[in-house]
Amino acid sequence: MNDRQLRYIVDGLGGKTNGVPREDGFDITVASEIMAVLCLADSLPDLKNRLSRMIVGYTFDDHPVTAGDLQASGAMTALLKDALKPNLVQTLEGTPAFVHGGPFANIAHGCNSVIATKMALKTGEYAVTEAGFGADLGAEKFFDIKCRMAGLRPDAVVVVATVRALKMHGGLSKAELEKEDLEALERGIPNLLRHVSNIREVFGLPCVVAVNRFPTDTDKEISSIIDKCRTLGVRTCLSNVWAKGGNGGVDLAREVVRLCEEEENSFGFCYENELGLEGKIEAIVKRVYRGEKVVYLPAAKKQIAQIESMGFGNCPVCMAKTQYSFSDDPLKLGAPEHFTVTVKNVKISAGAGFVVALTGDVMTMPGLPKTPAAEKIDVDGEGRIIGLF
Amino acid sequence: MNDRQLRYIVDGLGGKTNGVPREDGFDITVASEIMAVLCLADSLPDLKNRLSRMIVGYTFDDHPVTAGDLQASGAMTALLKDALKPNLVQTLEGTPAFVHGGPFANIAHGCNSVIATKMALKTGEYAVTEAGFGADLGAEKFFDIKCRMAGLRPDAVVVVATVRALKMHGGLSKAELEKEDLEALERGIPNLLRHVSNIREVFGLPCVVAVNRFPTDTDKEISSIIDKCRTLGVRTCLSNVWAKGGNGGVDLAREVVRLCEEEENSFGFCYENELGLEGKIEAIVKRVYRGEKVVYLPAAKKQIAQIESMGFGNCPVCMAKTQYSFSDDPLKLGAPEHFTVTVKNVKISAGAGFVVALTGDVMTMPGLPKTPAAEKIDVDGEGRIIGLF
Amino acid sequence: MNDRQLRYIVDGLGGKTNGVPREDGFDITVASEIMAVLCLADSLPDLKNRLSRMIVGYTFDDHPVTAGDLQASGAMTALLKDALKPNLVQTLEGTPAFVHGGPFANIAHGCNSVIATKMALKTGEYAVTEAGFGADLGAEKFFDIKCRMAGLRPDAVVVVATVRALKMHGGLSKAELEKEDLEALERGIPNLLRHVSNIREVFGLPCVVAVNRFPTDTDKEISSIIDKCRTLGVRTCLSNVWAKGGNGGVDLAREVVRLCEEEENSFGFCYENELGLEGKIEAIVKRVYRGEKVVYLPAAKKQIAQIESMGFGNCPVCMAKTQYSFSDDPLKLGAPEHFTVTVKNVKISAGAGFVVALTGDVMTMPGLPKTPAAEKIDVDGEGRIIGLF
Amino acid sequence: MNDRQLRYIVDGLGGKTNGVPREDGFDITVASEIMAVLCLADSLPDLKNRLSRMIVGYTFDDHPVTAGDLQASGAMTALLKDALKPNLVQTLEGTPAFVHGGPFANIAHGCNSVIATKMALKTGEYAVTEAGFGADLGAEKFFDIKCRMAGLRPDAVVVVATVRALKMHGGLSKAELEKEDLEALERGIPNLLRHVSNIREVFGLPCVVAVNRFPTDTDKEISSIIDKCRTLGVRTCLSNVWAKGGNGGVDLAREVVRLCEEEENSFGFCYENELGLEGKIEAIVKRVYRGEKVVYLPAAKKQIAQIESMGFGNCPVCMAKTQYSFSDDPLKLGAPEHFTVTVKNVKISAGAGFVVALTGDVMTMPGLPKTPAAEKIDVDGEGRIIGLF
Repeated sequence: MNDRQLRYIVDGLGGKTNGVPREDGFDITVASEIMAVLCLADSLPDLKNRLSRMIVGYTFDDHPVTAGDLQASGAMTALLKDALKPNLVQTLEGTPAFVHGGPFANIAHGCNSVIATKMALKTGEYAVTEAGFGADLGAEKFFDIKCRMAGLRPDAVVVVATVRALKMHGGLSKAELEKEDLEALERGIPNLLRHVSNIREVFGLPCVVAVNRFPTDTDKEISSIIDKCRTLGVRTCLSNVWAKGGNGGVDLAREVVRLCEEEENSFGFCYENELGLEGKIEAIVKRVYRGEKVVYLPAAKKQIAQIESMGFGNCPVCMAKTQYSFSDDPLKLGAPEHFTVTVKNVKISAGAGFVVALTGDVMTMPGLPKTPAAEKIDVDGEGRIIGLF
Repeated sequence: MNDRQLRYIVDGLGGKTNGVPREDGFDITVASEIMAVLCLADSLPDLKNRLSRMIVGYTFDDHPVTAGDLQASGAMTALLKDALKPNLVQTLEGTPAFVHGGPFANIAHGCNSVIATKMALKTGEYAVTEAGFGADLGAEKFFDIKCRMAGLRPDAVVVVATVRALKMHGGLSKAELEKEDLEALERGIPNLLRHVSNIREVFGLPCVVAVNRFPTDTDKEISSIIDKCRTLGVRTCLSNVWAKGGNGGVDLAREVVRLCEEEENSFGFCYENELGLEGKIEAIVKRVYRGEKVVYLPAAKKQIAQIESMGFGNCPVCMAKTQYSFSDDPLKLGAPEHFTVTVKNVKISAGAGFVVALTGDVMTMPGLPKTPAAEKIDVDGEGRIIGLF
Repeated sequence: MNDRQLRYIVDGLGGKTNGVPREDGFDITVASEIMAVLCLADSLPDLKNRLSRMIVGYTFDDHPVTAGDLQASGAMTALLKDALKPNLVQTLEGTPAFVHGGPFANIAHGCNSVIATKMALKTGEYAVTEAGFGADLGAEKFFDIKCRMAGLRPDAVVVVATVRALKMHGGLSKAELEKEDLEALERGIPNLLRHVSNIREVFGLPCVVAVNRFPTDTDKEISSIIDKCRTLGVRTCLSNVWAKGGNGGVDLAREVVRLCEEEENSFGFCYENELGLEGKIEAIVKRVYRGEKVVYLPAAKKQIAQIESMGFGNCPVCMAKTQYSFSDDPLKLGAPEHFTVTVKNVKISAGAGFVVALTGDVMTMPGLPKTPAAEKIDVDGEGRIIGLF
Repeated sequence: MNDRQLRYIVDGLGGKTNGVPREDGFDITVASEIMAVLCLADSLPDLKNRLSRMIVGYTFDDHPVTAGDLQASGAMTALLKDALKPNLVQTLEGTPAFVHGGPFANIAHGCNSVIATKMALKTGEYAVTEAGFGADLGAEKFFDIKCRMAGLRPDAVVVVATVRALKMHGGLSKAELEKEDLEALERGIPNLLRHVSNIREVFGLPCVVAVNRFPTDTDKEISSIIDKCRTLGVRTCLSNVWAKGGNGGVDLAREVVRLCEEEENSFGFCYENELGLEGKIEAIVKRVYRGEKVVYLPAAKKQIAQIESMGFGNCPVCMAKTQYSFSDDPLKLGAPEHFTVTVKNVKISAGAGFVVALTGDVMTMPGLPKTPAAEKIDVDGEGRIIGLF
């Protein structure tokens, strides 16, 4: 499917029998409010209430129309009833894991479901959860949205780093990543340090950097990160899980246990809900991204005023921002400063209970690459699927 | 989902990043050529070849572009690989049945898959298959499309009749069907007789009418059908399967066996493939529907010329027509005569191997009723889905 | 302008500020109801009333919304106030003429304005008016719509014929018209005779055929028409106006005067307004076009029912039909018989006071030719426009 | 006409016969590049060349397609041939004036035509021209675009001020303007002073403020402006032209003559063409608007890169910006500071020879007010148009 074709459509054409013409569009599932509702609901009745509160449109005089108003929330709950139950899977070594809910913290709140996380906390001594796409996106939303709503209090944080990503932040192109380049690596390290500093100073949590080794990383590169971090008082552990399985992560696991048990924990949010929408966006941009200023397009200004007048000013904010930069410009690498973040649109997700602020050119429906993977997929003479990888 | 909103859309809007603007639309799955391909394929390689031949568009100078040209057929085959295997289910009494492929003979060719039918023929003494939505649609397409392509030769036909349907053909509205009305029933019987006559005279097969009893049918009504049919030399069997299970169908089964074993069978098609597209459409309209004339809108004329010039003139024709009348006007009940059938559009389904002729106001995507069933569906306090029926 | 691009559009896109999305389109001015209103109005107050009655849309529950409801009729009248006054021009020889109102009787009612015609009748002894695009279109509408509404009673009719047009009806292509072809001419003459017969028998008016000579016509061709007509009792006059000015038309003028003064005149309409819309359409198709049958697409059926329920069943009917054939198929030349006319859409022009029936593939907005004339238009070094002809 | 409905459309729908679907839109005539071309052309051949260079689209691989490529420039020139000649009109007192070309310096370059201005310079001792909608828009574009392209060198500038406008910049609403408010007036004066400072310091021209008196202005208000300006060394003249005709402007005229003859003139542009597009935009924003920073949306960044790669980096820049504020936010009144200007789109007008930068929410097609003026327009019983004013 070339889904980009469906990002922005006009439907209901062809006369009254076919509905009413309107501008419309498709989002990738994980960017939909329904996915956020599923991940933040803590029970079946809560799921139904949240679905019911979802705003699907506005009347001509700008009153919101909800899924509940359309009497659709019962049927939606029926469809999602089983999807609300966490999926229990296991790793190659038999460790239990819940895979439940949508990722993509660049365009969504990007966390595992609240129910799965609480179940993990009930069933294990330590529960590890992932919040992807950069600690400025994944971790910030995990803390400010999920932990706040679900009453969770994390004990420690693992910031994952790779030599490859830091070399990209040091200015290399994808094609140049394979060969050793200590200078590029050094230029990229400030990006890592800013993430670490955010975790410790903004959110008040103990933190370790896991250096996730790749086959192409050289020993010198690995040492370089570890040395540089040590100099600056940042703990690192090398993770060789990709090669050695659980054994490759023992050091890291020990350090995490130590952080949980022994380190001081003064967990707090980046902002208080009472700040007002602009105040909250500014807090994220200045404290976490370290930008200088927020600019709102006129449409965004109006949307903020409308959302606050509807009584949603106290919701947390879910930023839609590129994962390639602390800023909203994917080309600003490393640890950029003095940049402006432009907010183009602001939307209320009344069922999820947060406000989405769209920045830069982030899209909620990805496109295919120039040569789609589908072109290589086939079925061979024996009926076996080939070309998937 | 209010799918009618998606019948006719414009997509690819919002600039080059989002594709190229084009007119587009969604069909119900069963009306799609992919469903026809799945049902007519007799092996995995045949499936892939058919998918590959499907025409998805035309170049500016009107050369067809196929799914194969887009290198999409391998991936499509991979997606459908398991769907090609027939689903074996069982009735309440344990009789095995294959449910495999899309129905709706008003907008599609409307038959079970060729693979499932052949598997049924291999695994049982008698294989019964359904071809729905009126013998003018379901049976005609079963014979002229599926049997022709798959080399099947049926032995006998069961025409199913209900008191309710015949009373509707006699002019009653849905609300009036519950009470006895022998006159309306008598007015409707010519509809049944025309179907029987088509089976015997056009397709040359022995045939029995199964009167499928409903709780609201009166004994007088049932007798009336049976008597009327007997007078005209048409065999009938009462089917009480809905009430008595298999026992309610023993008479019918015996008669079917007798027809298969003893009656003369001079099976033939309604038309030969060599007739040309207009010739074939006319054959169906005049011989099966018993209409007087076929009118083609100018667009349909051009499409026929183009399809024949592309070399598809020898394909069988799949009529899209209302199931409520022998004509293309749902209000012409009973056994209408002297009517004209208007062909609005003609399309080639090169993968399926047939040409679709759209008549009247038939739509390939249904709409919701005024009060959608979804409004009643809910999940109760115990987590059980309610309101489905 | 490539206007075809504007035939069918979706506008009001881009959010609430830009209006409400709707399906829309542009028609050529002469096909608009406003042009018909201008031509049929007999005074400024009548113009305003007609504009006010024009239906511009329907509410969700199908009540018509008029220009008057939108309070737009005053401003529209102000814009058209001066346009309502007939334009007096003169021929090269100084004969006064009014050029006032839109032509194109294939897609509109195609007559000069009522006010101009009445002014001509007041100011001259004989008033000649043109009603173009075939007597099946122009003359029929002139009689049944304009004369009926304005209370005009014509005295005589001139049917204009050309050798070229009759040879085309005899099967020649445009490229073959230059050379003499008596056989093709003879094959085309039945088309002319049917027009003459319509004028005399359907509308009860005396009639003469003016043979409008072209430089490429041969004497034999001219004689052939005249002889053939004489045999069948049809008067003809040769018109050489193109070459000799007024002198070339003296014979024709004398014959017209004679028809007006001496011939019997039993003028009547093709149908009475009380017939019902389908009855009126059938009367035109059978009596004037000489077709066998009218087929209505389901949409047209519904529109007729709605228009009659709105109280417009007594309006005359304005047919939109190709000018190339008596039928709705431009390829059916000469005097075709046994054809069916398909009515695709029926619309009420409540301000004009007639109902429009669209047949075949007639379009109310023409397209450019493959090589638009604009490509040759230019301004030369002296500032003169060149390439117009 | 509710033209806003046409701002953003999809046209070419309905199949190949109706063209190719594309996103499209209508602009108000004065915002069109054709109007700019007409105003900047200095001869018929120059007009044709400019029309020919206009870019109307891009190929799939992003090469520009011009009106010349479409062979449309000849026909366009033919249509505009007479429009290129200035319109000579006269004031009530018989003073000759050229009214020729499109205004609206908020969305266009907003100047009288070059040909009319040069004709005025040839035919009078002093030529006065207007450049509307705030000196930050009209005057800046007059200098940087028109004077630069046409080689004009102005001698002096009249900045027109009204008590009403300055009170609005002092924070009053439209409804409050009628009554005396010296404090609001004083708060608004910095807006005037910034315009004066721009003329003198950025563009190096002598300047006088014309206070254009309105009937509702009080003497105290008029004195207040004049006193305040005198204190700051800004000359003012009271203009009573609205009441006394030419006599009401004698003082102003004398001062303008004096400025032209006696004052020092060091005319220069705000920026040099060689600066690069971002440099030029920044120069206007910082020097004329006195903003702090320019932010470019990602789309604008890409457009700038493309325009420069096409070789248009040396064109002057035409800003599309609200006329209500020095900033791009209509609510920032008076003489705002520390603001950011957001550039949303950048377009090349290759025929006009400038680059358009769109800021804030400026629209190139205005909408109707809530109650359109058309509702009051009518024709009375005598055939006179009423309700225009």
